[in-house]
Amino acid sequence: MAPHDAAPDPTSLPNPEERRALVDVATGRAPADLHLRGAHVLDPFVREARPADVLISGRWIAAVVPPAGVARDRPPAAAAIDLPGTLLTPGLIDGHMHLESSLVTPARYAEAVLPRGVTGVVTDPHEVANVAGVPAVRWLLAAARGLPFDVFATVPSCVPSTDLETPGAHLDADAIQALMGDDGVVGLAELMSFPDVVAGDPATLAKAAVAEAAAATVEGHAPGLGGSALQAYLAAGVQSDHEASRFEEGLEKLRAGMFLFVREGSVAKDAAALAPLFDAARAERLGFCSDDQLPHDLLRLGGVDHAVRTAIQAGADPLAALAAATWNVARHYRLPRRGAVAPGYLADLTAWGADLGDLHAVRVFKGGTEVARDGALLAPVAAAGDAGGDGARAGAAAAGLADAVTLPADPDASLDAALRWRDGDPAAPVPVVGVVPGSLATEAREATPRVADGRLAADPARDLALLTCTERHGVHGRSAAAYVQGFGLERGALACSVGHDHHNLMAVGADAAAIRTALARTAELGGGMVAVADGAVLADLPLPLGGLLSDAPLDEVAAALDALDAAAEALGVTLPSPLMALSFLGLAVIPDLKLTDRGLVDVPAGRLLEVPYGAAPDGA
Amino acid sequence: MAPHDAAPDPTSLPNPEERRALVDVATGRAPADLHLRGAHVLDPFVREARPADVLISGRWIAAVVPPAGVARDRPPAAAAIDLPGTLLTPGLIDGHMHLESSLVTPARYAEAVLPRGVTGVVTDPHEVANVAGVPAVRWLLAAARGLPFDVFATVPSCVPSTDLETPGAHLDADAIQALMGDDGVVGLAELMSFPDVVAGDPATLAKAAVAEAAAATVEGHAPGLGGSALQAYLAAGVQSDHEASRFEEGLEKLRAGMFLFVREGSVAKDAAALAPLFDAARAERLGFCSDDQLPHDLLRLGGVDHAVRTAIQAGADPLAALAAATWNVARHYRLPRRGAVAPGYLADLTAWGADLGDLHAVRVFKGGTEVARDGALLAPVAAAGDAGGDGARAGAAAAGLADAVTLPADPDASLDAALRWRDGDPAAPVPVVGVVPGSLATEAREATPRVADGRLAADPARDLALLTCTERHGVHGRSAAAYVQGFGLERGALACSVGHDHHNLMAVGADAAAIRTALARTAELGGGMVAVADGAVLADLPLPLGGLLSDAPLDEVAAALDALDAAAEALGVTLPSPLMALSFLGLAVIPDLKLTDRGLVDVPAGRLLEVPYGAAPDGA
Repeated sequence: MAPHDAAPDPTSLPNPEERRALVDVATGRAPADLHLRGAHVLDPFVREARPADVLISGRWIAAVVPPAGVARDRPPAAAAIDLPGTLLTPGLIDGHMHLESSLVTPARYAEAVLPRGVTGVVTDPHEVANVAGVPAVRWLLAAARGLPFDVFATVPSCVPSTDLETPGAHLDADAIQALMGDDGVVGLAELMSFPDVVAGDPATLAKAAVAEAAAATVEGHAPGLGGSALQAYLAAGVQSDHEASRFEEGLEKLRAGMFLFVREGSVAKDAAALAPLFDAARAERLGFCSDDQLPHDLLRLGGVDHAVRTAIQAGADPLAALAAATWNVARHYRLPRRGAVAPGYLADLTAWGADLGDLHAVRVFKGGTEVARDGALLAPVAAAGDAGGDGARAGAAAAGLADAVTLPADPDASLDAALRWRDGDPAAPVPVVGVVPGSLATEAREATPRVADGRLAADPARDLALLTCTERHGVHGRSAAAYVQGFGLERGALACSVGHDHHNLMAVGADAAAIRTALARTAELGGGMVAVADGAVLADLPLPLGGLLSDAPLDEVAAALDALDAAAEALGVTLPSPLMALSFLGLAVIPDLKLTDRGLVDVPAGRLLEVPYGAAPDGA
Repeated sequence: MAPHDAAPDPTSLPNPEERRALVDVATGRAPADLHLRGAHVLDPFVREARPADVLISGRWIAAVVPPAGVARDRPPAAAAIDLPGTLLTPGLIDGHMHLESSLVTPARYAEAVLPRGVTGVVTDPHEVANVAGVPAVRWLLAAARGLPFDVFATVPSCVPSTDLETPGAHLDADAIQALMGDDGVVGLAELMSFPDVVAGDPATLAKAAVAEAAAATVEGHAPGLGGSALQAYLAAGVQSDHEASRFEEGLEKLRAGMFLFVREGSVAKDAAALAPLFDAARAERLGFCSDDQLPHDLLRLGGVDHAVRTAIQAGADPLAALAAATWNVARHYRLPRRGAVAPGYLADLTAWGADLGDLHAVRVFKGGTEVARDGALLAPVAAAGDAGGDGARAGAAAAGLADAVTLPADPDASLDAALRWRDGDPAAPVPVVGVVPGSLATEAREATPRVADGRLAADPARDLALLTCTERHGVHGRSAAAYVQGFGLERGALACSVGHDHHNLMAVGADAAAIRTALARTAELGGGMVAVADGAVLADLPLPLGGLLSDAPLDEVAAALDALDAAAEALGVTLPSPLMALSFLGLAVIPDLKLTDRGLVDVPAGRLLEVPYGAAPDGA
């Protein structure tokens, strides 16, 4: 693999020499650098696959010609690759995802998905933005530059997600506008605050206006929205959605004018239900996305290739599905010269094995260079960019993503204040966050508290553990606490600096001391996930970049998660993937009960609950 | 019709108040301004037509809802219009045309096509640019601003068309770049110099690069181009074509990646031949255009509506054709919020009568206001903009388009020098421009000259008239001359200041004196078309804006052309539309023989011909 360290930003166009070379190669005046022979080529324009040879000049496709015409008319190419029995398509482009869900850097993500035929993503850097704002978004784009992988970004639209939490940064319309001109920025990320849009909130509408004025797309996120409210959401300027989970919902959204990303990820799985949308008349308004793919799923199932595969296996026409995951996404975002195997397009190409139901990548090319073969990388990716090593860390420091976990000045006092029994009848029930395995939603339960030493205390016999959230952005350092049920934790504690979406420190523990130890270790790592018991660290995963990302390879991260899960099991935990579950227990936009640094949030009611311990509600 | 004099430029988006109102109307919190009831609505997303009501808020569509839902849930609209039995689509958008071919201002053009359901055009202001360059392009856009009609522009890419003529201005890549940021500019106009593109000419490739860097489209023009040369043309960055005239040519261009405008105009008529391209898999890459529609055809047949009608009558699916002429064109050029009847889109709407084979507009709305009904305007258009009256003339003066006809300092001497017999054998044949009725191409013929008084002289008995071209941009004021055959002119002369593409003064006459009179009258008008005999003006059409456009209504211009044709007939002319024919006899990019101010051009050879009269060849 040729070095990519001089590769320009993903929005770059051919320079004058490249443009001239393209024309010379296309006409046959000059030899191609690479000649791909014997494949069928996907044509999204006429929606057919036909035998054709592809002539590549540098990063670009110079010509796509009938096989018979090449040998006769042209000088031989510098190199040739035979691809018999394959279907050659553009590299897949994930239309909406959060790189941070993989827990790794862009370089490590690219390593994981390039062998699967994915050559680019449109990421919403919502998590790093919550930690460090505009500089963090720029860091993520910079960390991806130079990789043999496209990272386009949409600008996070909802930082913070609610006003019931304390994030590390706020992105208002001015900040969004500042980012709109950056190389690689293609849109405004999912306007999750759809109730605010539908209500006509001026500040929210202004964000859409800023993106439209920059000729960027306005991405949507509106689970279950229909009827008049859907019309209003679109009238405000929103152009897409990736939350449809039923055929009828998808059809209504298509008819209303939305570009629809069919999603299949770790959390939401919609591809099978939406596969029937892939008939000829509707397919041009469909793309694919993974949204959130967690490390184990990414390793085992893949990135957006998994979404395409799932839809095909559920009956979607393979050519329509592959065109959706390439051409349609590129056109939706107006990605320059992306998404087709045609003259002038970037030579980001995947040759798929003949069985499209299986959909495995045989050869993968990025910018005219073969980067993976038969599921394996041909050369390291991380070294090519600046995201895999010291460069990423240095940039992260400048962006406020290094040492991004600030413990309270007195951690003991912060936790103690959150647990201190304040008033009220100790025999009266208090709210309990009921964890539902495999769901981001929780149940609002109740239980009679156990109060010991004037503090709220865990009660393992009733599976009542202490859940805490400690502000870690250096704003106020306060903690909030609640009971959580469903972990099965008997002793020790788990903690993590990934705590959607504010990314304060989430912990679940059998006692305050264990939580203190877990938080201390998390901070010592500069962020991460830990399991502790009896004052000792049992397992940990450092996430030193913003407290969100590791720069280790994905398989190492997954192995560390396995070790954490095993350690948790040793502490009595019965919940699958307890650290990932913990990281979502602060997500105050998903019902029913969530805990932020400001307290226990009744999500459907949109307010903080009063509890008889800790500070008075809304005391932040 | 509400006044549009405050209407913003065509790229404008909803302002904050409009955006808020859209959401309020869509949700039913506020009443719509207008409620369109009872139509079927074209949905280009799912490609179907279904019964739906449309709620309009100001300029914008707030919601498209099932008919049953409106009365029940919402406050009544301020106004309602019943549209039973109609198909409601967006207003048609002409995807490639030259406003100057109509000989009228944007306002007068709008008057002509709005009642036909056309609400916008993408114009290539190639002719005004040849006269006065960048300011002329800006004048045309300004003259359209405020009209109830969208005029988007592509930046002329080939000014001048050849180096064998003297235009009034040159547009290089820097000038093109300067225009790319202007409001309403959406692309680079047809790169007619396709041989230069395919040859890899750096200055030509730079023009495409400038447009791509501005995220504008790069429009093509490549009649008959295929194979490797077509691949090279696309590899250079060209994205569209409107020159396909055969099904197979169109299919090859679609497969290669071109967006294809199906053209039907006064000069080229391709819609019937290309109608079979409108099957489901190909229809999304097709648009429509008129390219050049001359005044009489515009009056009699219409604008781009005629192209759509022709395709439907030739078998194109009506819904696919109407989606092509609206949504597809809007998306190709990325026109903001144009091309769909959907929430958030501009309320540019046409309700078509039930017989789509006939395709007549019953009601036409621009920006939410009804502008035409049953083929008639509801209010004057010209008064709304600044293009129809004194404003247009004032702006034109600043743009160099007023008094744009500069006669040579000594017109007699200029003509005399062009006709003076220089040397050679008067018995040897000289070239003759052979006019072919109904074609822009001419035939290269020969004839023995008649030399009188040491000057080339007409010979009506052999239908040999004098054809002259006199430079009128104030550059050098020289004339060139040739024989032309095919007019049938017996006495007098015709002249015009429209002379594609350089727009020097073209004249055909029975003697030099008549030509002098005709040129003098043309100059006196500030440009135009004239017929003279015996020292008297028989008929004329003033074209005072750049010598190209009238600010009179289209029917008056057509009537003046009729009078000119009648006057010409009285002079013996047998050629149909002789003034329009004359205006194309300087077009040195169409074979075989053409006359520019620099001399007689052998178009296939790309050079000036030697003749034994006038100045020595290339003596400019």
